[in-house]
Amino acid sequence: MTLTKPYVVGIDIGGTNTAFGIVDTRGNVVAGGSIKTPKHVEFNDYVEQLHTAVSRLIEQEGYEGQIAGIGVGAPNANYYTGNIESPANLYWTENNKRLEIIPFAATLKEKFGIPVAITNDANAAAIGEMTYGAARGMKDFIMITLGTGVGSGIVVNGQLLYGHDGFAGELGHVTMRRNNGRMCGCGRTGCLEAYASATGVARTAREYLETRKDDSLLRNLPIDDITSKDVFDAAVAGDELAREVFDFTGNMLGEAFADFIAFSSPKAIILFGGLTKAGELIMRPIRESLDRNIINNFRGKTEIIFSQLKEGDAAVLGASALGWEAK
Amino acid sequence: MTLTKPYVVGIDIGGTNTAFGIVDTRGNVVAGGSIKTPKHVEFNDYVEQLHTAVSRLIEQEGYEGQIAGIGVGAPNANYYTGNIESPANLYWTENNKRLEIIPFAATLKEKFGIPVAITNDANAAAIGEMTYGAARGMKDFIMITLGTGVGSGIVVNGQLLYGHDGFAGELGHVTMRRNNGRMCGCGRTGCLEAYASATGVARTAREYLETRKDDSLLRNLPIDDITSKDVFDAAVAGDELAREVFDFTGNMLGEAFADFIAFSSPKAIILFGGLTKAGELIMRPIRESLDRNIINNFRGKTEIIFSQLKEGDAAVLGASALGWEAK
Repeated sequence: MTLTKPYVVGIDIGGTNTAFGIVDTRGNVVAGGSIKTPKHVEFNDYVEQLHTAVSRLIEQEGYEGQIAGIGVGAPNANYYTGNIESPANLYWTENNKRLEIIPFAATLKEKFGIPVAITNDANAAAIGEMTYGAARGMKDFIMITLGTGVGSGIVVNGQLLYGHDGFAGELGHVTMRRNNGRMCGCGRTGCLEAYASATGVARTAREYLETRKDDSLLRNLPIDDITSKDVFDAAVAGDELAREVFDFTGNMLGEAFADFIAFSSPKAIILFGGLTKAGELIMRPIRESLDRNIINNFRGKTEIIFSQLKEGDAAVLGASALGWEAK
Repeated sequence: MTLTKPYVVGIDIGGTNTAFGIVDTRGNVVAGGSIKTPKHVEFNDYVEQLHTAVSRLIEQEGYEGQIAGIGVGAPNANYYTGNIESPANLYWTENNKRLEIIPFAATLKEKFGIPVAITNDANAAAIGEMTYGAARGMKDFIMITLGTGVGSGIVVNGQLLYGHDGFAGELGHVTMRRNNGRMCGCGRTGCLEAYASATGVARTAREYLETRKDDSLLRNLPIDDITSKDVFDAAVAGDELAREVFDFTGNMLGEAFADFIAFSSPKAIILFGGLTKAGELIMRPIRESLDRNIINNFRGKTEIIFSQLKEGDAAVLGASALGWEAK
């Protein structure tokens, strides 16, 4: 079958940049670009700028009339309503007043005259994985994004789990420590995200450095500036304390995954995002912890694997996959 | 529309009794009966006995040729395969050897010449609630059964969540206490079921009686014989210790529900089973705890309600609902 419109556009909206790309049916980003995601500006001005940049790319590369749909991944995006609702990291205005509910899909659809669908970034990654990556052919899997925060996209029976209000899949905010849990950005304590994100890894390293006496390469760095990348570099260089930070993080992820598997019994849990660069440093303790914590009936049934999406393209790719089903 | 076969049969298999009933489209059990679920007998003899009893009821009441399907609820039943797999409480033999994998649906279908579908008891309750009860019209809800154990049936986008292997929805076995957690029947520690089941309530009462000094009506009973019913009776009579047992139990359920809502964002969590007889004694602490523990975006969006299925009929009704979609 030859599609008359064999391309989609993916747009990934982050707090700093808005990246976009034109994607073919095999998941190749055939052309791409980005604009700054400005803060405190009129929403209509931002949309105007985005429309200009994307249209120019489409024209320039000769894809006019060949775009089947536009898929957008954004924080706090609601697939059902097409809105971005009260986003923490995005700040747009309308007549100089902050826009709390942003009718993103409808505005873009009107501007481009092309179907637009929107979902949150972790859900977009899950759709991307299902369309082009490690989850091809899987009907039940969970995508876990380990970045600045911990996000999740849950696929059940071949469909993304949106829940009754469009906001299901906040697995970064299940409670892992009910006593003396770490403060989380969500206002509660003990959330998975407070431990298993890139920032969580840096926090764990700082806690270890402050409460332990043993040597570590990390002691050469100003403690407040330590990042998960520093911890990774030290671990690769054989630093014991740094390795234990990954053991601690992986152990908690394994505990959490045992609960997730009891919920939806997925074929795979797929890991995506910055922390996955740690490779076996994080994967080994996850698998060992999962094996210790999982209920017997489920042991060994769920694969824990890394995403197969090319890293630089993944967010745009994931968003673009939603474009195929946009209406 | 008049259905040519306007009745279904529901069969609920417990460790002691196998109950069955003929059910109409409105969820009325128009006729019912039961046989003992014998242990250590040939599976074929049990099926023969069940077939005889159910067929006799159908004939007696004049429903021959009017049964659209048979739905079965049983522990460890797998909807995908139609099998009951390694059940802890059921023991049937074939040629005097224990049957580990019991081809229940296929055997019954052959015997009756009527379509048969099978699922576990908590899933059956969820289907019953969706077909005849409090979840009519809901596409996303979670059924929690609070009985001897804690079971769950999860409905997502109008479909039961089975997972990749048919065994999703083991919410009684999420880990609620990671340190010094109670032993659970599953071989692990700290599971929700070890606290929030009827047996869990009795265990909490015993712990309180052993570690506290205050008066309680429960001190008049032999400590090892205390049941959740005794705790309920004492609480209704104003016993402070007994009330605190329900507060503790409800508090833990509220903590668990906050995590469940972060997963699937259901419209409602519906409570079913023996412990729900405690009414507001258990409901008030659940709601208060949920409100303390839930992530902000979800607060107040999910109803916590009791099942609307008539208690005596519920298990058979739930199973019967599966009969409508049996093939």
